[in-house]
Amino acid sequence: MGLFDGLAEAREQKKIEGYMRAALKEAQKAYDMHEVPIGCVIVKDDKIIAKACNKRNHDRSVLSHAEILAISQACKKIKDWRLDGCTMYVTLEPCPMCAGAIVQARIHHVVIGAMNPKAGSAGSVINILKTPGFNHQCEVESGLLADESSALLSSFFKDLRETKDAAESTDGIAAGDDEEIDEKNVAAPAAAPTENSSEE
Amino acid sequence: MGLFDGLAEAREQKKIEGYMRAALKEAQKAYDMHEVPIGCVIVKDDKIIAKACNKRNHDRSVLSHAEILAISQACKKIKDWRLDGCTMYVTLEPCPMCAGAIVQARIHHVVIGAMNPKAGSAGSVINILKTPGFNHQCEVESGLLADESSALLSSFFKDLRETKDAAESTDGIAAGDDEEIDEKNVAAPAAAPTENSSEE
Repeated sequence: MGLFDGLAEAREQKKIEGYMRAALKEAQKAYDMHEVPIGCVIVKDDKIIAKACNKRNHDRSVLSHAEILAISQACKKIKDWRLDGCTMYVTLEPCPMCAGAIVQARIHHVVIGAMNPKAGSAGSVINILKTPGFNHQCEVESGLLADESSALLSSFFKDLRETKDAAESTDGIAAGDDEEIDEKNVAAPAAAPTENSSEE
Repeated sequence: MGLFDGLAEAREQKKIEGYMRAALKEAQKAYDMHEVPIGCVIVKDDKIIAKACNKRNHDRSVLSHAEILAISQACKKIKDWRLDGCTMYVTLEPCPMCAGAIVQARIHHVVIGAMNPKAGSAGSVINILKTPGFNHQCEVESGLLADESSALLSSFFKDLRETKDAAESTDGIAAGDDEEIDEKNVAAPAAAPTENSSEE
């Protein structure tokens, strides 16, 4: 690899890390709203066209996952239900609903932070993003800034446990949030690239 | 089975057919909007709490599938992202996004009209509604008024082909709609109860 190739690769890596950092910033917003900290951005032609954080409890809607909210924004922006040529950066492996929406919207490329062994549908429980029977399959990479995503989730669930212990009860807002995310596994050291990862 | 048992069963059957007819009425609304005719209602405590039809092209949003719109309404109605104790009646087997949303919302029972061999995620391509790894699995029945659902879809795609033939081009609105639904299979005579079906 020549010097220029190396520089170009480093620049590319810095760029994609920048997008994941933008997704992490969204996750922090969810954290600040006492929501499970998950964030997402959608990029097209090197521009962020949508960004959102999980706010399922705040909105009292199962559809208010970060990915669904971002997909909704992106469709509005592009004025089309097809998000061809888009890349999604998401801090945690998508659940089946979000993975299904990604496939339906024909998002080309999905970059994932931490994996979610309890409900992840990009390889952990099932792999909706790469099911040969569907008419769209995504390029998928995982493990980008996974430590930072995991640390945020870990800290959130630690706070939640302490709050629960202090109150000796759940408050109805946070209840059930942790059922679909296995904090111990999510918070494990960033995994080596999984079977979903494709190295570019 | 005694006389009263028989009467009760007939009444129950009539009731659930009524809900599917309400879903078919929604599908007809989609048809009238030149959308792939799929409709859905959500029932709780013997009342329809949400109903919607597919309007993905009209809304230019991948999220405007009948099931997602109905789930959104139901969450608003119940003021909770959890749709415990609800039954969904849907005229066509849900896609992966909608099946994922059904699992995330913890909908107890799903009654399906026609199956969709091309994208169906309640057994046809994959079975998201009954994946043991997730923290929720649904009761699923299929084949209820499947002929009527299939006939509507078949007629829609026939119209679409004729319009396309007449114009010798697609109009951008309908393009791509038929990629995820195999009209030949969908329009086949109502299938015998599938492996998803549970007889009550």
